[in-house]
Amino acid sequence: MTGTTVASTPQAATDRPRGAAPLNLADYRAAALKILPTAAFDYLEGGAADEHTVRWNHEAYQRLALLPRVLAGHVGAHTGCSVFGTALDSPILLAPAASHRLFHPGAEAATAHGAAAAGALMTVSTFSSQTVEEIGATATGPWWFQLYVQRDRALTAELVRRAAAAGARACVVTVDTPVTGVRERDLRNGFALPSHGTPANLAHVQGSSTHGAIHDPRIDPAVGWDDLERLRAVCGLPVLAKGILRAEDAQRAADAGFGVWVSNHGGRNLDTAAATLSALPAIAERVAGRVPVIVDGGIRRGTDVVKALALGADAVAIGRPYVWGLAVGGADGVRDVVQTLRRETELAMALVGAATLDDLTADLVVPAGVHRP
Amino acid sequence: MTGTTVASTPQAATDRPRGAAPLNLADYRAAALKILPTAAFDYLEGGAADEHTVRWNHEAYQRLALLPRVLAGHVGAHTGCSVFGTALDSPILLAPAASHRLFHPGAEAATAHGAAAAGALMTVSTFSSQTVEEIGATATGPWWFQLYVQRDRALTAELVRRAAAAGARACVVTVDTPVTGVRERDLRNGFALPSHGTPANLAHVQGSSTHGAIHDPRIDPAVGWDDLERLRAVCGLPVLAKGILRAEDAQRAADAGFGVWVSNHGGRNLDTAAATLSALPAIAERVAGRVPVIVDGGIRRGTDVVKALALGADAVAIGRPYVWGLAVGGADGVRDVVQTLRRETELAMALVGAATLDDLTADLVVPAGVHRP
Amino acid sequence: MTGTTVASTPQAATDRPRGAAPLNLADYRAAALKILPTAAFDYLEGGAADEHTVRWNHEAYQRLALLPRVLAGHVGAHTGCSVFGTALDSPILLAPAASHRLFHPGAEAATAHGAAAAGALMTVSTFSSQTVEEIGATATGPWWFQLYVQRDRALTAELVRRAAAAGARACVVTVDTPVTGVRERDLRNGFALPSHGTPANLAHVQGSSTHGAIHDPRIDPAVGWDDLERLRAVCGLPVLAKGILRAEDAQRAADAGFGVWVSNHGGRNLDTAAATLSALPAIAERVAGRVPVIVDGGIRRGTDVVKALALGADAVAIGRPYVWGLAVGGADGVRDVVQTLRRETELAMALVGAATLDDLTADLVVPAGVHRP
Amino acid sequence: MTGTTVASTPQAATDRPRGAAPLNLADYRAAALKILPTAAFDYLEGGAADEHTVRWNHEAYQRLALLPRVLAGHVGAHTGCSVFGTALDSPILLAPAASHRLFHPGAEAATAHGAAAAGALMTVSTFSSQTVEEIGATATGPWWFQLYVQRDRALTAELVRRAAAAGARACVVTVDTPVTGVRERDLRNGFALPSHGTPANLAHVQGSSTHGAIHDPRIDPAVGWDDLERLRAVCGLPVLAKGILRAEDAQRAADAGFGVWVSNHGGRNLDTAAATLSALPAIAERVAGRVPVIVDGGIRRGTDVVKALALGADAVAIGRPYVWGLAVGGADGVRDVVQTLRRETELAMALVGAATLDDLTADLVVPAGVHRP
Repeated sequence: MTGTTVASTPQAATDRPRGAAPLNLADYRAAALKILPTAAFDYLEGGAADEHTVRWNHEAYQRLALLPRVLAGHVGAHTGCSVFGTALDSPILLAPAASHRLFHPGAEAATAHGAAAAGALMTVSTFSSQTVEEIGATATGPWWFQLYVQRDRALTAELVRRAAAAGARACVVTVDTPVTGVRERDLRNGFALPSHGTPANLAHVQGSSTHGAIHDPRIDPAVGWDDLERLRAVCGLPVLAKGILRAEDAQRAADAGFGVWVSNHGGRNLDTAAATLSALPAIAERVAGRVPVIVDGGIRRGTDVVKALALGADAVAIGRPYVWGLAVGGADGVRDVVQTLRRETELAMALVGAATLDDLTADLVVPAGVHRP
Repeated sequence: MTGTTVASTPQAATDRPRGAAPLNLADYRAAALKILPTAAFDYLEGGAADEHTVRWNHEAYQRLALLPRVLAGHVGAHTGCSVFGTALDSPILLAPAASHRLFHPGAEAATAHGAAAAGALMTVSTFSSQTVEEIGATATGPWWFQLYVQRDRALTAELVRRAAAAGARACVVTVDTPVTGVRERDLRNGFALPSHGTPANLAHVQGSSTHGAIHDPRIDPAVGWDDLERLRAVCGLPVLAKGILRAEDAQRAADAGFGVWVSNHGGRNLDTAAATLSALPAIAERVAGRVPVIVDGGIRRGTDVVKALALGADAVAIGRPYVWGLAVGGADGVRDVVQTLRRETELAMALVGAATLDDLTADLVVPAGVHRP
Repeated sequence: MTGTTVASTPQAATDRPRGAAPLNLADYRAAALKILPTAAFDYLEGGAADEHTVRWNHEAYQRLALLPRVLAGHVGAHTGCSVFGTALDSPILLAPAASHRLFHPGAEAATAHGAAAAGALMTVSTFSSQTVEEIGATATGPWWFQLYVQRDRALTAELVRRAAAAGARACVVTVDTPVTGVRERDLRNGFALPSHGTPANLAHVQGSSTHGAIHDPRIDPAVGWDDLERLRAVCGLPVLAKGILRAEDAQRAADAGFGVWVSNHGGRNLDTAAATLSALPAIAERVAGRVPVIVDGGIRRGTDVVKALALGADAVAIGRPYVWGLAVGGADGVRDVVQTLRRETELAMALVGAATLDDLTADLVVPAGVHRP
Repeated sequence: MTGTTVASTPQAATDRPRGAAPLNLADYRAAALKILPTAAFDYLEGGAADEHTVRWNHEAYQRLALLPRVLAGHVGAHTGCSVFGTALDSPILLAPAASHRLFHPGAEAATAHGAAAAGALMTVSTFSSQTVEEIGATATGPWWFQLYVQRDRALTAELVRRAAAAGARACVVTVDTPVTGVRERDLRNGFALPSHGTPANLAHVQGSSTHGAIHDPRIDPAVGWDDLERLRAVCGLPVLAKGILRAEDAQRAADAGFGVWVSNHGGRNLDTAAATLSALPAIAERVAGRVPVIVDGGIRRGTDVVKALALGADAVAIGRPYVWGLAVGGADGVRDVVQTLRRETELAMALVGAATLDDLTADLVVPAGVHRP
């Protein structure tokens, strides 16, 4: 018996993290926790109220088990896909997140570089710390623009036109935030987003503060389906509705040709909103492939990606994880996080016997721990 | 990247707790724990036996998830409602609790002032530390009287007549206490209610102690439906039966025109009695809107209020939380607790896409964590 | 506000434990833990293997909730019942337990006195530390004899004849112990029952040790239904089969007129045997009232008794709890434990609206935490 | 009352562990933890990613309860069975595990001796630290050969021919490892199998490293059903497919006459793969007795063996537990682990009323904790 060991896969030695390097997304979180100021980490980590939904999003994946197919007889797994006409190397998207500068001086430009390096589509937030023009000028990969509909509809129209002009390939309209959820970590930390004071994209606008206490002075609480129609006409881009959890809302979106982004805002708005994965199957059934279905919330492992796609999503979006990467290593950190998740996804696909994303079908997934003797 | 932050909603800065101020009801509990004598806190906090029901009441809300509607296209949420002919600003009631003086020298008068300031209906206990006349004289908002039917029915009739004369708008007859539950915290603390020695409303009555060990000397264990009929005739007020968990009991109450108060006495009487929320849907179905349905037990968040109303309650009642507020800040504390819960309710309504309480329908609520691939 | 308190129910002050006195059965366990040698406590407390069934027995009660009936309009609750022709004050029996002298020098005689004082029927173990003649001579209340069928059937017949002659009113044949379970606590403690060396009832018999390793030298692993028939003929007493968990076994017992004792030997024989309460409803359905149904395992509260009876048991048996009482206070301890549980049962009956045991029907019980919106 | 105790079953005193000796498989694990280097213990203990499946495998057994039959009227329990024509003393097999030398200098030869002493069939890994010739020459009991299909099919054919020539009675083809799962414990420990450098059976082969990063340079990711057919023809032995979790894969195997080994590779490849026990019933139903069904994963107690066989397995395989035994005591340790589990199995069979393995039927098993009042 000897203590000596040799690497079984030398070629992996170079692209796999070693020693103290992050092995998985949780490691990136741990690294970010060490270097970020508490208030910034808490802003990223926290959710509304008691943070049940934050937890549920994550746990939903751990309640499902996989039933892999064996002896499929093929080599390797390919993650290529196409979403709203954009060909992508992988079905992993970056969800919108406000104020990247809070996490790294490279801000959204760094994220965009990392995303492009990893072949991941980025979604730029209305409350980005750089303007859509700045980001669009530096981005080498595809990106979408996330929109909070402003009370000032002329301003809203200007925003989406600017995003389209800067290169955005779709407009993701957030529909789950008529009011902003109360995130008690931020209140306890006395934290508020710099972007809410002077968000780059709105630097020329004077914020109003004449509305009710629970309402954001800028974000319009009275957005309707017709607003989405008008926005699509204004920007000439595909439009996705982000924040859908009900099957009938998904059906209405699909009927109108809007993409469906299944989200509960990462548990940051309405605590005890249903876990996104639990809402996905009914939504996918109603959409029936007519428009793309994206799902975010709680995805931390390649097997999570496989489950989401098996249950009807066309792509997944990650939020907190890539910001951990950004905080830890700027563009390289973003790239590494995406690549880690993508490699795990490829591995999980191979292990369930799937050669392409189309092979990820619902019969691969069963409730964990259920047993009927 | 800068550490400077600005408040996104300046108007909120003045009406939201800041720093060490309580942000939510749990914070009020923590503050009350610090200042109340152990025996008083335990009396409030504790329940019967192993306190399963105390816990279940709370957990029942956390087992349900919300499926919000999006793009509803309206502004804000209104919590106005009417219960048994009394128009209320919000569907949040104060449940009866004995001996407020145990928690604050201002006693029930302080509670009444706080309730009125927050637009909440108060329920005054038979075992209040002030008389109904004292409370009625100072109360500026609507209030109900809670009745333990006394062995002496003449005394009972006198009590409800006095309450009606003092301004009570309804009589809430407790029907779940033929005997008092054993609260072991109180026994271990050697604690007994001052009110049970000389409750203000019964100061002129000599307590009897000739009954069985498990029976209270005054409270009648043999109350029947006909007693409720007679009481209604005596006081001329609407009568509610408080402590109903079975659908057939609710049906009988509704058939007779009595309001239905779904309660297990806060888990203080029969341990392992069903959680009130789990009993609510079947009850609401039988009542079918004929009489008001109130539910108490475990409500700590605005989303709890939304769920209770979505599942058929016309209003909710809180007990321990407002007493925490009373202990911490007298009338202001009561007001702040109610306002905190009401603000959370408005926020939750807006986030589920409800403009009025009528929009809170059962399809908003699904079991959490259930997933059918 | 004053810290002074007065007792609400002075008459209760004398018969309720105060201060450090035990309030409930768990308190008796804690007291026994303090005074018993570790090996004796562990022998009593432990179960087979990983002790899942020990835990499941207990948890089964906590997974069921009660739906009390209100306004029943009667006073008090009576626990009188009749089992196999013996009128009993309460449906609480003492399950057989070996070697009471291990826990108190008064041994089985002390237990018998305590049981009689509390109106509880006692079951005397084959492996009692006193003979059936000694126990029968001192017992003032009704008792049954528990039989392990011996390999020597003549000896077995002699045992039950002696028990009948000594006053036993029924013979409880243990049917769940063809072999003895491995209790690892005992092996780690190097503990073995004194009774297994020289059990009083078998003092004149020389134990054999020529059987397989997993078999007890005396207990017969090959007992059949015909043995029960023969034993009944031999002793002329009602016979109960103790250790039934399957509905078809219960049916066969009832068809033959044997009482059904639902038990998994307190989790001491087959780990992961089903919790007794979970097995009860199907058994009660098959028995259909033809013979008495007893259930033991995990009963610690009056609400547990109520649930067991509501789900079809005619009586319950407690084991570990009365031995805690015996260890703590001899006959008085046994009496106090039974009275505590009985008082809790009366209280629970009153609170669910039951005047007699016949009022305890299955509709009082629902799964805890189940909610169908 | 006396502290003296006597052994109840003297004959057991010699073959049962005493004092600090291991009583059960968990004890062997604890002992192995003490003596193995961390990296070796972690390699054995760990699984893929978050190790959910490792845990689920184990927990699946604890979610099932047993409903024993009583008064079966027979003596003792026999565990004899026959698998693919080989008569075995017990249905306990040793699953393949790489590099036994890592755990004990006696390596696979020691394991083979221990297995034979306990009457258990051993499965030799492709990545054994001794050659099949060395193992076959020393093995006195039956053994099978586990095959990872190599990219070089000529080499693969040579391997199985060598195994057959060395005495293997069946060929177990691993079908769940097109790629190797990421075991993060090993990465953190900087651990890689010595065998992966120079596995004994492949010492004459030069490893290739021209494949993708997620693929092992030798193991072929593109194995199909036809490969199994060819292998069977080459080696002339019965072939089992190891790593099946889906009923349709089991059906295809059975249709072709391949044995079905239900496995998720001990949770080491695809995390959140379904627990093997939860997959077993549907598989057993499809196989319908046509070929042997083996199940591994999480078996630690005799009651686990009983449950697996009751739910349709013909035999079970243990992995980690026998390696604990090997680490602790070489051949004797392997023997002791198997004998401990076998003795527990016999005991459990006796306690559920089963005389032979054929008596272990599905009606003995019910979900734990389920209760329908």
